[in-house]
Amino acid sequence: MSDGANSMWGGRFAGGVDAIMEAINASIGYDKRLYGQDIAGSRAHAAMLAAQGIITAEDRAAIDAGLVQVQGEIEAGTFTFRPALEDIHMNIEARLKEIIGEPAGRLHTARSRNDQVAVDFRLWVRDQADAVVTGLDSLMRAFLAQAEAGADWVMPGFTHLQTAQPVTWGHHMLAYVEMLGRDKSRFEDARRRMNECPLGAAALAGTSFPIDRHATAAALGFDRPTANSLDSVSDRDFALEFLSAASICAMHLSRFAEELVIWSSAQFRFVRLSDAFTTGSSIMPQKKNPDAAELIRAKLGRILGATVALFTIMKGLALTYSKDMQEDKEQVFDAADNLMLGIAAMEGMVKDMTANQDALAVAAASGFSTATDLADWLVRSLNLPFREAHHVTGSLVAMAEKKGCDLPDLGLAEMQSAHSGITEEVYSVLGVDNSVRSRVSYGGTAPANVRAQVARWKEILG
Amino acid sequence: MSDGANSMWGGRFAGGVDAIMEAINASIGYDKRLYGQDIAGSRAHAAMLAAQGIITAEDRAAIDAGLVQVQGEIEAGTFTFRPALEDIHMNIEARLKEIIGEPAGRLHTARSRNDQVAVDFRLWVRDQADAVVTGLDSLMRAFLAQAEAGADWVMPGFTHLQTAQPVTWGHHMLAYVEMLGRDKSRFEDARRRMNECPLGAAALAGTSFPIDRHATAAALGFDRPTANSLDSVSDRDFALEFLSAASICAMHLSRFAEELVIWSSAQFRFVRLSDAFTTGSSIMPQKKNPDAAELIRAKLGRILGATVALFTIMKGLALTYSKDMQEDKEQVFDAADNLMLGIAAMEGMVKDMTANQDALAVAAASGFSTATDLADWLVRSLNLPFREAHHVTGSLVAMAEKKGCDLPDLGLAEMQSAHSGITEEVYSVLGVDNSVRSRVSYGGTAPANVRAQVARWKEILG
Amino acid sequence: MSDGANSMWGGRFAGGVDAIMEAINASIGYDKRLYGQDIAGSRAHAAMLAAQGIITAEDRAAIDAGLVQVQGEIEAGTFTFRPALEDIHMNIEARLKEIIGEPAGRLHTARSRNDQVAVDFRLWVRDQADAVVTGLDSLMRAFLAQAEAGADWVMPGFTHLQTAQPVTWGHHMLAYVEMLGRDKSRFEDARRRMNECPLGAAALAGTSFPIDRHATAAALGFDRPTANSLDSVSDRDFALEFLSAASICAMHLSRFAEELVIWSSAQFRFVRLSDAFTTGSSIMPQKKNPDAAELIRAKLGRILGATVALFTIMKGLALTYSKDMQEDKEQVFDAADNLMLGIAAMEGMVKDMTANQDALAVAAASGFSTATDLADWLVRSLNLPFREAHHVTGSLVAMAEKKGCDLPDLGLAEMQSAHSGITEEVYSVLGVDNSVRSRVSYGGTAPANVRAQVARWKEILG
Amino acid sequence: MSDGANSMWGGRFAGGVDAIMEAINASIGYDKRLYGQDIAGSRAHAAMLAAQGIITAEDRAAIDAGLVQVQGEIEAGTFTFRPALEDIHMNIEARLKEIIGEPAGRLHTARSRNDQVAVDFRLWVRDQADAVVTGLDSLMRAFLAQAEAGADWVMPGFTHLQTAQPVTWGHHMLAYVEMLGRDKSRFEDARRRMNECPLGAAALAGTSFPIDRHATAAALGFDRPTANSLDSVSDRDFALEFLSAASICAMHLSRFAEELVIWSSAQFRFVRLSDAFTTGSSIMPQKKNPDAAELIRAKLGRILGATVALFTIMKGLALTYSKDMQEDKEQVFDAADNLMLGIAAMEGMVKDMTANQDALAVAAASGFSTATDLADWLVRSLNLPFREAHHVTGSLVAMAEKKGCDLPDLGLAEMQSAHSGITEEVYSVLGVDNSVRSRVSYGGTAPANVRAQVARWKEILG
Repeated sequence: MSDGANSMWGGRFAGGVDAIMEAINASIGYDKRLYGQDIAGSRAHAAMLAAQGIITAEDRAAIDAGLVQVQGEIEAGTFTFRPALEDIHMNIEARLKEIIGEPAGRLHTARSRNDQVAVDFRLWVRDQADAVVTGLDSLMRAFLAQAEAGADWVMPGFTHLQTAQPVTWGHHMLAYVEMLGRDKSRFEDARRRMNECPLGAAALAGTSFPIDRHATAAALGFDRPTANSLDSVSDRDFALEFLSAASICAMHLSRFAEELVIWSSAQFRFVRLSDAFTTGSSIMPQKKNPDAAELIRAKLGRILGATVALFTIMKGLALTYSKDMQEDKEQVFDAADNLMLGIAAMEGMVKDMTANQDALAVAAASGFSTATDLADWLVRSLNLPFREAHHVTGSLVAMAEKKGCDLPDLGLAEMQSAHSGITEEVYSVLGVDNSVRSRVSYGGTAPANVRAQVARWKEILG
Repeated sequence: MSDGANSMWGGRFAGGVDAIMEAINASIGYDKRLYGQDIAGSRAHAAMLAAQGIITAEDRAAIDAGLVQVQGEIEAGTFTFRPALEDIHMNIEARLKEIIGEPAGRLHTARSRNDQVAVDFRLWVRDQADAVVTGLDSLMRAFLAQAEAGADWVMPGFTHLQTAQPVTWGHHMLAYVEMLGRDKSRFEDARRRMNECPLGAAALAGTSFPIDRHATAAALGFDRPTANSLDSVSDRDFALEFLSAASICAMHLSRFAEELVIWSSAQFRFVRLSDAFTTGSSIMPQKKNPDAAELIRAKLGRILGATVALFTIMKGLALTYSKDMQEDKEQVFDAADNLMLGIAAMEGMVKDMTANQDALAVAAASGFSTATDLADWLVRSLNLPFREAHHVTGSLVAMAEKKGCDLPDLGLAEMQSAHSGITEEVYSVLGVDNSVRSRVSYGGTAPANVRAQVARWKEILG
Repeated sequence: MSDGANSMWGGRFAGGVDAIMEAINASIGYDKRLYGQDIAGSRAHAAMLAAQGIITAEDRAAIDAGLVQVQGEIEAGTFTFRPALEDIHMNIEARLKEIIGEPAGRLHTARSRNDQVAVDFRLWVRDQADAVVTGLDSLMRAFLAQAEAGADWVMPGFTHLQTAQPVTWGHHMLAYVEMLGRDKSRFEDARRRMNECPLGAAALAGTSFPIDRHATAAALGFDRPTANSLDSVSDRDFALEFLSAASICAMHLSRFAEELVIWSSAQFRFVRLSDAFTTGSSIMPQKKNPDAAELIRAKLGRILGATVALFTIMKGLALTYSKDMQEDKEQVFDAADNLMLGIAAMEGMVKDMTANQDALAVAAASGFSTATDLADWLVRSLNLPFREAHHVTGSLVAMAEKKGCDLPDLGLAEMQSAHSGITEEVYSVLGVDNSVRSRVSYGGTAPANVRAQVARWKEILG
Repeated sequence: MSDGANSMWGGRFAGGVDAIMEAINASIGYDKRLYGQDIAGSRAHAAMLAAQGIITAEDRAAIDAGLVQVQGEIEAGTFTFRPALEDIHMNIEARLKEIIGEPAGRLHTARSRNDQVAVDFRLWVRDQADAVVTGLDSLMRAFLAQAEAGADWVMPGFTHLQTAQPVTWGHHMLAYVEMLGRDKSRFEDARRRMNECPLGAAALAGTSFPIDRHATAAALGFDRPTANSLDSVSDRDFALEFLSAASICAMHLSRFAEELVIWSSAQFRFVRLSDAFTTGSSIMPQKKNPDAAELIRAKLGRILGATVALFTIMKGLALTYSKDMQEDKEQVFDAADNLMLGIAAMEGMVKDMTANQDALAVAAASGFSTATDLADWLVRSLNLPFREAHHVTGSLVAMAEKKGCDLPDLGLAEMQSAHSGITEEVYSVLGVDNSVRSRVSYGGTAPANVRAQVARWKEILG
């Protein structure tokens, strides 16, 4: 169909069928990123083959030196990747053959591209899981520093973006530490679960060579070899679990990013972002667009998209390896890159941002935010049932609203008109500082709690 | 807008604005499913309030008895759910008030609907995680039984749905045991991570009442209370992690379902499904449509859809509780129900299905499936480099193909024309039974390996 | 596996295999919703069979009367749906047989459940497309009414949620009319494309009976019969296109819902929602939670989830009908219901909401929002290149910021210190009312433009 | 945070904050792909500015010549893209300034990056829609050629991947022509709907310059300018609708890809793919892996993932432009590229594939595939109700199955034992060729129908 292709695609595939097939089939354009993992896997494999007497020590030495040279060439930028060789495995093996000749042909003994790509990709994802954990640690530290500085700064606690009760800045920051802590443990669990070595599954059935899979597993830092060769070359759970954990983490980042966008608006002014993570306008110097926050907010879309892509790709694939699975890498590469970028940018923003304590305090005190404290006082001091205390509080709030004042501005007589048992003591619970100080239940917003949690997390993070 | 609504919606919302708001806002239509969790949470809360001296022992006793009665009414079907009361919490509390009067108003002390729904839903998801683990155990046992019975039945091992190498039926069944084993561990990890109690976070800030969150956590089987009240009422990670694990599990089920559909075709005839999980046709009695397998294959779509829904819902929500989060339940209910159904139906099919050993064996032996064994023999016995062994094997396969015979049908002289070193010994590796017996590397398809893995899994499953 | 099922599933499937298969296989639980379409299709089919002489006029009359009776029973609530009969088709046919006896057996001539469900579901989706179009018309009218009332109310135009330039309330409302207008045209296109009748495709191959597919197509309001019988029973494009259009529409709704949530906050106070679409708190009467807006915002998640579900379900299904496709209905039902609910609730909110003109005007004038007007004046009046005009404006904004005043507060001398050519005329462009009045380019925010667009849309909507 | 960044990210962002912000913020890495659209838009804008007297003819000439030179440099590969300039717009404008000096600063009059990127991206998506339509035409022709060649080749028609009734190869091919025809009309509708020009919306509010938006719209091939400036810079419907249509199309491709994978298996052997679109194995030359088909099957995942990504990104964005929207391009670029690649590869495969007519015919005749024909004959010739005819046929199939023969092998006496009215004439409907010839209902599989549809489609495609 060469001619047709030529005319039809407006030059897009001028090379006809071959160009189309190469475009859809070759993976070297992106899987070259796995070169380090591929070479590490080959070196471990060759060492094991020699230890088991399957190849000679001389061949192994030649292979090893050759692979080190290839790695050097790639890292120096002198290696020529050839699409005609399709993938990273064949590109490396072909170059190895040029360098060391015949022994290169012995490297692929008791191995197949199916288990080779499985081990390469798993090593790459494992590295990413480690990198995410490190990045999360740093981001948690950034939130902890904010929490520590503002353990007792009051701000409005929102539900439905409506002021509900006063809370502390530190407590709000710690909420994200909790989320990121769960994210971290999810990546750690995923890493542990994926840490089994598929190398030695060969094409799909295992091999009759007397290989030592425990040796290669150990050499590559795996806990053990995988237990079923069919599963080993079919499995992409490790990628899906990584993507799922990444999606949850990106969701958390999107929530704080949204808060930063709202908090940076002229109407809120809760926080000032640094110049480094905003962009201005040559014409409106006062305008600080929270670009980084917006982009982080968008990252969930991208990462969730990658997750959906891989689930859809894997749906209904008969065992074992199918070429469909080659589409896994770009999705995971893109998701991992963007998650890391989002974490790094968020860390930078959190470190650099400045809370506007005054604006936070004013907002915290508005909107009858201590009405719940009043109701609780009625329950606690006058032994009213909660539902009745609610009713009394509601009538006082209505009274204050009518007068255009706030709750503490009502006189005692006015208070007592709603319930005769109310005493002067009530005023002690109506201030926002008293309010947050009173929330001492475990996990509550009291500054003392915040400081205790900061200390706990600092110990955990070391 | 009542009139407009009336005419515009063709009677759909004849009640006008109120009907529309009730339709979009009320959750009782589905969250009544949480009644057991809600009552358990309330009973634990009341017990703690009394133990802390916040309510009296008498009130607690009245509340407890009342709640038991409500639960009885719901389970007896005599309870009337009222949409005007919006949700399960208010429906139960309103009925409690009817039964016990004033003390009902004290139950909500130091609590809010925000932490109440958080604990209810978490308990429900935790129960589901447990149920899935139990279901997976049963399904794994069904696969194990098939694996044990057919540890040495040969069948084609496929890549790209093309015959690659012979494997054993037992080995193929065990591949699914591995997948399901990972699924199980994912649900266990999720359960462990979600097993913290949000009760006591109150509306969002914690409370000034001297509550004992460790007590309610323990009473409800949680490992500990959650550490941050804002996070406690904002967090739906437990649902997202459950959905993600469910999606991976459903993906595994979709793969075996696809295999069953293909294997049941007239062209494959690898397996015969039982009548119970197929449907016939009154006109074509030979036709056994693998309906259950197809429906299971489709479940991934449904569960992945629920996962995408909840991620999208949670995207960019400012802390803490937003009403958007009310949309979480139907997604998780539907996904959990369908995952359980898929697991149950798959278990039934696996238990009842009959492998067609003859068809499997014939298919396994076709297509030069032992070419790799020949190549490996050349490497092992004649010390050829693997790439050269491949070349020799290729020429012999071409020779056999030209003659219209299979590899074992070539004479020794013909064999030697490709490589003079070939001896009679080569024939021992060309039979499919020998082939699978030779794959003794760890995780390989050899019947002995299969039996060892079956034994290992039986011990794990108890 | 009855016993195992019994114990394993904790009573969930106490009926064992049969209960599991019925649970996964029967669709009557939800497809009974198609009864009207099913009966309409059968009546058209019977009329055609009689007209073509395939059945007698007497049989047709009996069938028709019987179907009318069945429809009456269903609508009266006296019909008993039986899961053992699996689906709506068999439930209706079985009842028809009870009523009219033998002729019921002639109805299924030249038909199959495959084309029957295809026509039923297509009719249902077509009805929904019509309903959505009607609903969108009403919602557009609600936005138009707001636009007309506030054609010249100034408000801040945002980018990045930062004040950029003043715009008019009417213009902002009209932006949503444009979006909804595109939504409407998408549903109309989808309706036109789906409006082909699959009835007569039979099981998958067409039929040898001399049926008249053009007649049944016309009777059911279709433009024509479908042209390929295999495609007719395999195709679910109409559902996917409906879902895609619904997702885009839900995305639009989510954007205005987000704006309503932000605008309702204490910090913005741009709009006051009616009590009908908010919920209060018994304790904080000032709190008006924008529940309906939040729920509408969440609907995109639900509808996008349904879309992903059906795409994933349809992925890689070999022709023609597969049971997987039975999973299509619940997704589309749920998405259609929720889209309609979202549109209705949004219409109610838009009709009832009250813009806070003062707050809008104050916000519009803040933040040097007319800096662009100043720059444009420099270009227009002094012939400065745009980039240079930006520079001059920037220095004036910086000057004003330093002085703590706004641009109109700078004196002419100060203005001229930045560029000597500036004249008194400049002050005419610095007021927000002048600013919005000046944006007369087609599609610009000038009140005159807004009124012209309102008039245009009113004419379109009739 | 430079130092922290340095150590924390292991060199990933060695440049610290600036490197992170550039990495997340700059779009030039991918939006350079829009250079042609950007320059076309700028040239149209400059021409209009001159025609309206907003800039001089001399300036316009200089701008135009400069832009032509920039385009030449980009296409010659001599242009240096600078990430510090962030995006394609600033890269081009900066270079223009180097070339022509001061007049470059006048180009941006009455324009903003917001409407500039909107028009650029819309032009790009419009080009892609056109390219997809052209590609679909070619692919439809490839299917038509197969349909014409095999208008009367019989093959099994499947439901549930079980043989149901015989159909023709041509009819099966035409099913895909129908699907692709709908795809084409969806892209055409999307193109029509997106063909409105946002240029002139400026930042978001329109402009006070006397621009002529109808002129720029016409110059760029748009039907008209957009009607609302806020909507113009906020709208990404055109991208979402393109992605939705692409997902449906990719779903169709995934279905035929699945069929090719199954049909290429050793068990089916329905079709032989050309070497160009398969890969072999150096060791198993008989193995032809259908790589291209598998990769096409996977493309739905990728394109659906991009669709989900953009929907999630757009969810709940307050008007107008938010930086989140910058994430739109990579998703659409990737989806468009992969859809085009999938269409091209599928066209190649369809053109080159060879149906195995013998295998198809044998499969078509097996499995009592004409049982429905027998039942229809009983209805037609003996006037049995359909349900009774089914019953008689069922007993005959059971009889044949018991005898191990097919339906035509039963003697007349045996036939009559099931129903005494059966005559010799019945045998005429039991052959597969007669069966397919009899399906002459509109849209049925009869060869005559197939040829008529091929003729119709040829006329449509020209």
